[in-house]
Amino acid sequence: MNYYGTQVTALIEELKRLPGIGPKSAQRLAFHIISMPQEHVDHLAHTLVEAREKIRYCKYCCTITDSEVCPICSSQKRDHSTIMVVEHTQDLAAYEKTGQYNGVYHVLQGTLVPSLGKGPDQIRFKELMDRIEHADQDRPVKEIILATNSSLDGEATAMYITKVLKPTGIKITRIASGVPIGGELEYIDEVTLSRALDRRIEL
Amino acid sequence: MNYYGTQVTALIEELKRLPGIGPKSAQRLAFHIISMPQEHVDHLAHTLVEAREKIRYCKYCCTITDSEVCPICSSQKRDHSTIMVVEHTQDLAAYEKTGQYNGVYHVLQGTLVPSLGKGPDQIRFKELMDRIEHADQDRPVKEIILATNSSLDGEATAMYITKVLKPTGIKITRIASGVPIGGELEYIDEVTLSRALDRRIEL
Repeated sequence: MNYYGTQVTALIEELKRLPGIGPKSAQRLAFHIISMPQEHVDHLAHTLVEAREKIRYCKYCCTITDSEVCPICSSQKRDHSTIMVVEHTQDLAAYEKTGQYNGVYHVLQGTLVPSLGKGPDQIRFKELMDRIEHADQDRPVKEIILATNSSLDGEATAMYITKVLKPTGIKITRIASGVPIGGELEYIDEVTLSRALDRRIEL
Repeated sequence: MNYYGTQVTALIEELKRLPGIGPKSAQRLAFHIISMPQEHVDHLAHTLVEAREKIRYCKYCCTITDSEVCPICSSQKRDHSTIMVVEHTQDLAAYEKTGQYNGVYHVLQGTLVPSLGKGPDQIRFKELMDRIEHADQDRPVKEIILATNSSLDGEATAMYITKVLKPTGIKITRIASGVPIGGELEYIDEVTLSRALDRRIEL
């Protein structure tokens, strides 16, 4: 039975579709939202739509940003000859928080998923190849650091990129095994991330 | 530093203000939302605003609903001489799920909070008094079942209502102590709730 009326029930159903929100959390959130001042709810709704509408990907590294070129790719203080390849923007943020990395990034926006047939065309891999091929002659790419997760798919992605890029002669490294097996990069503490970067090995 | 651009950062900040959503959950939700199709995000935003705008309280029992009188108060199949007093609409829903209760409800929309000086004027208590005083002579209120939580504030509220209503001569009962001390009604299993109802004691 519909105890809460049509609108509140619809809201609970919508919230339940979000990741990590179960039926009880959805109910709790819904009751919180309807108890908020109307203008706060309007603002939340506007922020949702605005974030989705204005989302852009940096034309170089493919990270989520709000300008054509992200602040890191625009910076002259960064070492543009070293590119760290990560799965998601969250992973970039995690490495930035260590303060130990001065190169630039490439955000694949996913990984290969061999078990589901998800291939290189479905991630931002072509954009990485383009960056390497069209790098300015006065600042060529010297090192690619593979920092995909140590999950099955992350490892498969690192192996694939190594295989494709090896013939270019560019140094290819993988972050060290300080990263726990099966762990998600974005949840790892900064010391572990820094150590994994320091101990990276050439492939 | 703002790694995600203004809009995504603003969205994360908004989501962090919701109950039970920490920084990591907010980030995860935000990235999920910006990866949703635009029309799904628009729909979610619309549902939020609509739920807040259209929220109404039943003119009799004060539960959250979408009509002037809620389905339970409108029903001729319910026993209108027995009123169960609960804190929130979620508690009403929890008792409805047991299928063991055929009376009606009164939803206080909160409790007294003696420690913060929150008194009877700040909950829907006057509405309960009005219902009792203005009940049809051919169907008077015969029993008030107090089903506030067994927390300090819930107990204080039950005691207060007992004290005020005792002189009316209406039978006043409290749900049995099957409800665990300190527990929140909405999270308790249906068997325990049913037992607490069966074993209610007269105060």
